[in-house]
Amino acid sequence: MPGHFPKFTMALPDWIESIVRPGEVFKDRLSRMRMAIRLASENVGRNTGGPFGAAIFEFETGRLISVGVNVVESSRCSIAHAEALAIALAQQSLVTHDLASRSLPALELVTSAQPCCQCFGMIWWSGLRGLVVGARAEDVESIAGFREGPLPDGWADRLRGRRGLLPIGVEVDVLRDEAIVPLQAFLASGRSPYNPGAS
Amino acid sequence: MPGHFPKFTMALPDWIESIVRPGEVFKDRLSRMRMAIRLASENVGRNTGGPFGAAIFEFETGRLISVGVNVVESSRCSIAHAEALAIALAQQSLVTHDLASRSLPALELVTSAQPCCQCFGMIWWSGLRGLVVGARAEDVESIAGFREGPLPDGWADRLRGRRGLLPIGVEVDVLRDEAIVPLQAFLASGRSPYNPGAS
Repeated sequence: MPGHFPKFTMALPDWIESIVRPGEVFKDRLSRMRMAIRLASENVGRNTGGPFGAAIFEFETGRLISVGVNVVESSRCSIAHAEALAIALAQQSLVTHDLASRSLPALELVTSAQPCCQCFGMIWWSGLRGLVVGARAEDVESIAGFREGPLPDGWADRLRGRRGLLPIGVEVDVLRDEAIVPLQAFLASGRSPYNPGAS
Repeated sequence: MPGHFPKFTMALPDWIESIVRPGEVFKDRLSRMRMAIRLASENVGRNTGGPFGAAIFEFETGRLISVGVNVVESSRCSIAHAEALAIALAQQSLVTHDLASRSLPALELVTSAQPCCQCFGMIWWSGLRGLVVGARAEDVESIAGFREGPLPDGWADRLRGRRGLLPIGVEVDVLRDEAIVPLQAFLASGRSPYNPGAS
């Protein structure tokens, strides 16, 4: 007898709003990155997912729109990276699939670690106008053991210069030393990285 | 006063189960691709999203696990591509983030059009063991006007040969002529492709 197709609900862990709420203001880039790193660290410490955190801010005002942490294992969904939650929830809050909509201020994604091959593409499609990155992919792979997958050559420049599409500013290595800390905490916790299809 | 973060629920359009149900069997590759193409065509004809359809099958038996269509605009989420729904819903049905889990048979994704830069990465992380593609990215771009974004050079070979991860078989140009039909129907409908950040 045929069954039914399920739905999938993407949601933040319960503890998030004890740390941060939408509408809070983070004036400068370093405070925005420290929030993304804190989310990553809390996600490890509270054992709710992988060592990754992200947040979306209004570029000019610093007003927080949304956040994300990695909930791949707890939500049983390989898509549920920190950046994915931040993007999907920002779009729900702002009631549009296009974060570059003319009615919105420019928005930037601040992420504790370099987007993987999936989140690179999510950023491409999102309407985000800026990307700020903490740890490098090589940090994620060598410290925490996740296999980040291949990016297009010159990935940052591919976002900065998009023919016929608005450019996405990219800044890397922002507070890289601090952004490595949740990766080290994940390693120290003794948990294994999920890598579907590990042979 | 600070607000609350929303959730995001990824769901198929209501008409899907009038077309296909999980557990149905599609013995050969062409019948699997024709189902993906039909989903794309119905999605255009019923005006529920972009001209893309996808489905996940047990490779050996042909049993249908999940399907997806593009619901980016209706769900207000740029992530909600056909492949994203197919992967997320398969993982919900099978209660794991890892479709390559040892308890599962090998699963393949059959998609009416070449995965974009986002869905390439989703496939990387999913645990899928095979990918079957209908229309090419150049068809999607030239006919329907979507800007698919950059893939890594040699993207298919990057999936086929993953160091330390199980290979993902890739077959392209399967029923390409039929897979182009929903793209042409989208063009003929007079609707515009969404391209967040179109300048």
